[in-house]
Amino acid sequence: MRDVSIIGIGQTEVAEHWDRSLRHLAGDAVLAAMKDAGIERADALYVGNMLSGLLTGQEHLGALIADFVGLRGIEAVKVEAACGSGAAALRLGYAAVAGGLHDFVIVCGVEKMTDTVNAETTTGLAMAADADYESIHGLTFVSINALLMRRYMYEYGVEHKDFAHFSVNAHQNAVGNPNAMFRRPISVEAFSRARMIADPINLLDSSGIGDGAAAVVICPSNMAPEFGNGRAVRIRASTMATDAVAVHDRPNPLWLSAVEASAFKAYQQAAVGPRDLDLFEVHDAFTIMSALSLEASGFAERGKGVQLAQAGEITRDGQIPICTMGGLKARGHPVGATGIYQVVEVVQQLRGEAGPNQIPNARLGMAQNIGGSGATVITHILEAQD
Amino acid sequence: MRDVSIIGIGQTEVAEHWDRSLRHLAGDAVLAAMKDAGIERADALYVGNMLSGLLTGQEHLGALIADFVGLRGIEAVKVEAACGSGAAALRLGYAAVAGGLHDFVIVCGVEKMTDTVNAETTTGLAMAADADYESIHGLTFVSINALLMRRYMYEYGVEHKDFAHFSVNAHQNAVGNPNAMFRRPISVEAFSRARMIADPINLLDSSGIGDGAAAVVICPSNMAPEFGNGRAVRIRASTMATDAVAVHDRPNPLWLSAVEASAFKAYQQAAVGPRDLDLFEVHDAFTIMSALSLEASGFAERGKGVQLAQAGEITRDGQIPICTMGGLKARGHPVGATGIYQVVEVVQQLRGEAGPNQIPNARLGMAQNIGGSGATVITHILEAQD
Repeated sequence: MRDVSIIGIGQTEVAEHWDRSLRHLAGDAVLAAMKDAGIERADALYVGNMLSGLLTGQEHLGALIADFVGLRGIEAVKVEAACGSGAAALRLGYAAVAGGLHDFVIVCGVEKMTDTVNAETTTGLAMAADADYESIHGLTFVSINALLMRRYMYEYGVEHKDFAHFSVNAHQNAVGNPNAMFRRPISVEAFSRARMIADPINLLDSSGIGDGAAAVVICPSNMAPEFGNGRAVRIRASTMATDAVAVHDRPNPLWLSAVEASAFKAYQQAAVGPRDLDLFEVHDAFTIMSALSLEASGFAERGKGVQLAQAGEITRDGQIPICTMGGLKARGHPVGATGIYQVVEVVQQLRGEAGPNQIPNARLGMAQNIGGSGATVITHILEAQD
Repeated sequence: MRDVSIIGIGQTEVAEHWDRSLRHLAGDAVLAAMKDAGIERADALYVGNMLSGLLTGQEHLGALIADFVGLRGIEAVKVEAACGSGAAALRLGYAAVAGGLHDFVIVCGVEKMTDTVNAETTTGLAMAADADYESIHGLTFVSINALLMRRYMYEYGVEHKDFAHFSVNAHQNAVGNPNAMFRRPISVEAFSRARMIADPINLLDSSGIGDGAAAVVICPSNMAPEFGNGRAVRIRASTMATDAVAVHDRPNPLWLSAVEASAFKAYQQAAVGPRDLDLFEVHDAFTIMSALSLEASGFAERGKGVQLAQAGEITRDGQIPICTMGGLKARGHPVGATGIYQVVEVVQQLRGEAGPNQIPNARLGMAQNIGGSGATVITHILEAQD
């Protein structure tokens, strides 16, 4: 199979875009990515999106967006894996290019969550959980994560305030990201004072909903130097793994098996270990997910993920900087777009274009996108291509 | 790239399955396909589905169904391209196997449309159209096709009764298909007498909604003889093309450019012409779509598609047998599943397992799945593998 590289990136600010429709958001990101890559055509467009049907009455985003950006006729399709939709679309784009089916593929993640027509966003997000065994009992997506957090606190003797540094770090990094939704720092005290959402998860444990789109252009690595002004970033690993959707069906709800499987397959594919990474874009939908992801990805022992944050090891000058542009928590979490935002941010870091948030000499970065409470996990490892 | 073959097929009856949930339907089809192929594991599961979010409050079908059929952990994702979702999922599965990413991929199409929780099916189907420029004006999916049919009748001097033979043929073929929803023949007179749905489309111009699931197992052709009792069917072509979603955006609403592009790319890939095909599973969501598809696929001149049906050339002993197991019209049209039903039916024909509907000596068959009113078109050409 062929090596694959990212030759262009684009993104919109994550915000409440009440004046931009779904197709406009996607168009902004795709056209920016095409311009960045210096291409005018592509073989295919894969769109990651979760909620457009329920919230805006529009499915069929592949053909719709391809036409809107001036690529009428090309292969185009929507890919859905709950909050992991964005990276799942990239995974399939990677397969098409690596395998030789296509040379130039655009992958776009887009979501519009803040002005909706048919239903509330909370109803939509619950579709990531098991409708017949979880949602039907009244569990929202936040409350499922609240059960996990409570269990974690009980099992490992951790207090709520111990999770603060995940959010403090994310907000600190968002200050320097012009595309982030919440660009202000928060304190440990503010974290503890925030109003409760689903006990023990409070407002500052939670990523916010938002509208946004992000896009990348990929092509075979050997063609990459001709495009995007020689700033190509190579995809060293692309993996996907799944788990039971319903949390009660897992042997240990505090161990994200799909994170472990996806991350360690990625390490193997890239022939690296967690210690080799210069940054890690974690799927911090809730602080508890950051802790569990760091543990299952090999950065901390079981129950020790929060200590990594407390010790300052997740900040930009820590052992493993995470959420370097604000993460889901503070950049914002337009669910089907998030996986592509993460990849775009790793590319920014590896190109040295992360502005005030730049990790010095970043060469190797990982982005991990999670659907549901760990049921679908897609991991990409990227490396600067000289 | 590697040649890819279908080594197992499975399907449920298309019906009002009020006693089977979405995951049960998908499970029935997937497990049947795995048994047929003689495999117990697979590398990935791609699920074609359009409406599960809106109608049953469940997204994230990849992980959900993978777990339910005993394949917890594998790569799994949902693919959506409106009514073309099923074949779009097969297209991506094909890419993964042909390109070398995976050896064994299961592709399942599933839809549950007749008992729903959150919305009406008509609302759901309108999501295949353009929400901002078509549905918002009150156009349903049927009424968009009604506009096309009226225009066709006007432009080509065709009367409504001239379309009858598409439905007569489909119902005649469904009689011999135990998985079909409407297993009774209809007469030309019954067709003309049927009650109006959206003038000029009446009840017998229209495919019915239904619940159902179908699945195939694919693997590299060189491994195929070891599986499925040596009845492998080779995928000679797999293509996808798109067009504007909104019909008014197309230069000529009566010419399905994406059908033409997809079909002729498929002929080129397989190095065959339309005359070489022994059967063609047409996306006959409405009789007008059959006429337009036959024309754009090269079987009839513009405006002459209905004459092919009137002349008896689409029946099992005609020049190009279509909808040989009942088509969307009479087998039923569980939208996200339909593309896989079509492929399963071509496989039945090429294996000589189509029972009373068998096309004698069928060697080469085509399945064409359409999303929206021609906006996404996926064409597969299959050949018996000796």
